[in-house]
Amino acid sequence: MRQAIMYGPGDVRVEERDRPVLLAPTDAIIRVTAACVCGSDLWPWRGIEQTAGPTPMGHEYVGIVEEVGAEVARIKPGQFVIGSFMASDNTCEICQAGYQSRCIHVEFVGAGGAQAEYLRVPLADGTLVATPELPPADLVPSLLTASDVLGTGWFGAVAAEAGPGKTVAVVGDGAVGLHAILAAKHLGAERIIAMSRHESRQKLALDFGATDIVTERGDEGVARIKDMTGGYGAHSVIEAVGTQESMMQAIRSTRAGGHVGYVGVAHGVELPGTELFFAEVHLLGGPAPVRRFLPELIDLILTREIDPGRVFDLDLPLAEAAQGYRAMDDRRAIKTLLRP
Amino acid sequence: MRQAIMYGPGDVRVEERDRPVLLAPTDAIIRVTAACVCGSDLWPWRGIEQTAGPTPMGHEYVGIVEEVGAEVARIKPGQFVIGSFMASDNTCEICQAGYQSRCIHVEFVGAGGAQAEYLRVPLADGTLVATPELPPADLVPSLLTASDVLGTGWFGAVAAEAGPGKTVAVVGDGAVGLHAILAAKHLGAERIIAMSRHESRQKLALDFGATDIVTERGDEGVARIKDMTGGYGAHSVIEAVGTQESMMQAIRSTRAGGHVGYVGVAHGVELPGTELFFAEVHLLGGPAPVRRFLPELIDLILTREIDPGRVFDLDLPLAEAAQGYRAMDDRRAIKTLLRP
Repeated sequence: MRQAIMYGPGDVRVEERDRPVLLAPTDAIIRVTAACVCGSDLWPWRGIEQTAGPTPMGHEYVGIVEEVGAEVARIKPGQFVIGSFMASDNTCEICQAGYQSRCIHVEFVGAGGAQAEYLRVPLADGTLVATPELPPADLVPSLLTASDVLGTGWFGAVAAEAGPGKTVAVVGDGAVGLHAILAAKHLGAERIIAMSRHESRQKLALDFGATDIVTERGDEGVARIKDMTGGYGAHSVIEAVGTQESMMQAIRSTRAGGHVGYVGVAHGVELPGTELFFAEVHLLGGPAPVRRFLPELIDLILTREIDPGRVFDLDLPLAEAAQGYRAMDDRRAIKTLLRP
Repeated sequence: MRQAIMYGPGDVRVEERDRPVLLAPTDAIIRVTAACVCGSDLWPWRGIEQTAGPTPMGHEYVGIVEEVGAEVARIKPGQFVIGSFMASDNTCEICQAGYQSRCIHVEFVGAGGAQAEYLRVPLADGTLVATPELPPADLVPSLLTASDVLGTGWFGAVAAEAGPGKTVAVVGDGAVGLHAILAAKHLGAERIIAMSRHESRQKLALDFGATDIVTERGDEGVARIKDMTGGYGAHSVIEAVGTQESMMQAIRSTRAGGHVGYVGVAHGVELPGTELFFAEVHLLGGPAPVRRFLPELIDLILTREIDPGRVFDLDLPLAEAAQGYRAMDDRRAIKTLLRP
């Protein structure tokens, strides 16, 4: 089968590899209908994160179940499925509490690489959610977002306790940040401030529900948020970047007693204990427990109440994966969809 | 009046100083019935925290109102009052949300020093709570704890979401940690694990509601908590020390999706972003919004439902304040009460 492999910074090649096979009786093999490039895939592309040799890429997927292991009972061949980037049994105490991304048996689905024709999904019964029937083609991009980027933005908004009467600020205008805006809107937030200086992203932010755009960053960005909130800071701030600057911007933009939901994968972040102590904000973040939100998100997409697939502004055949990475790295594309 | 002044590490002197006077129309002056030595007073005593010249000490107090400013309406001379160590207007958005220790007009009550015969309390109407009548003498120590140490332990337990069905671990066996146990018990926690290696503190921990004692620390302590919780970690962990080791012990003892309430004043703490991201725990901490809990705590004490004053195992006249510091520093005393 054809599969995208990263050989090093800026070097993604699509080449022929063996099709994955069932390794455990709880596995499923799916034929990938669509995959995409994640903001986190850009860390190794940029050389900020090291890879140990050629690495299969991608961890976001929708597809048709091809084959299931002997212990898979709920998921059946022929079903159209969406799954989280983290495999979970969905039965352990952590899963039952809604933190499936930290399941006691968690596995990274992307280990095999989802930017490929076929993908092995561990713990298929816990990880995958099937749609009632094959979805219309125009909904495939939106359903694909539920696999990670939408679920991650959603988790950020839920972790930040966005809701009625709340002023929400979003740090980061990538696809995750944009989906956090969509989530905050759906959760009923009163005011949603998008922190962005890119025109096309500002436009989508407004379409997704942002009420205000702030172009300042760092201390100036914090000062603007304070100005806009009577000096208090926002009730809820979603961090969707993962750098020291963005984390501190998020924490400092939040009022005491408010909530920071951080979903940008942390890179080189160190939180100063004394400042954090006196900031007195709630912090919750990490790899999003997408599985918690999947049934609701799939329903909102199938009923066309939300249209998260709009973050895909580049749609390429898998063979052109490298172009998709490059376009996102250059910020010419918000997010690239890849069709095997 | 007589007042305790810290001249430098290990050097606390009780000397004659001017009585405080009303500086703002929202101030009150109280005659201090009892004050005490806080664990945080030991940081400068040990020289870990610098003081800029001779410093009035103490920020925990109960007393009788002597005089009020022209704009004080609720608090009246002659009342017996308890107040937080942080003055708050109790009306701003932060206060209304229950985070009075970060009030938009917050002032540190201890600036004037509560280990003294008289104390100026800013924002008296927002900060002080009066008892319905003069309390019996034997309840004074317990009422005094509500000013900080009990309220701080209580906040730790609330921030860690201790409650029914929860396994709670407490890192730190000082008075705050012990009161966090008392709070977790009152909040209905199923299992309360005290991490302590001091016999007298273990005994009080058990009396306050601890169900288990763990004597291991650091990685070994974390491993014990995991062992005791089916490999998951505790649902709720209260950090009541403030060091890097204790913060990491608290975070690592908490299951994914669980809650850390941290109330030890952070000293030299840096939280590693990547570990925090993948730990996926809720974090909330800071100076406790004691004012939020005061009415409830005073009621629980006056009805003798809780007996937090048991943390005072040394009761000295103010003149002997230095002995009280030394006994706590040597861990011969859990907490020292000072009577002006």
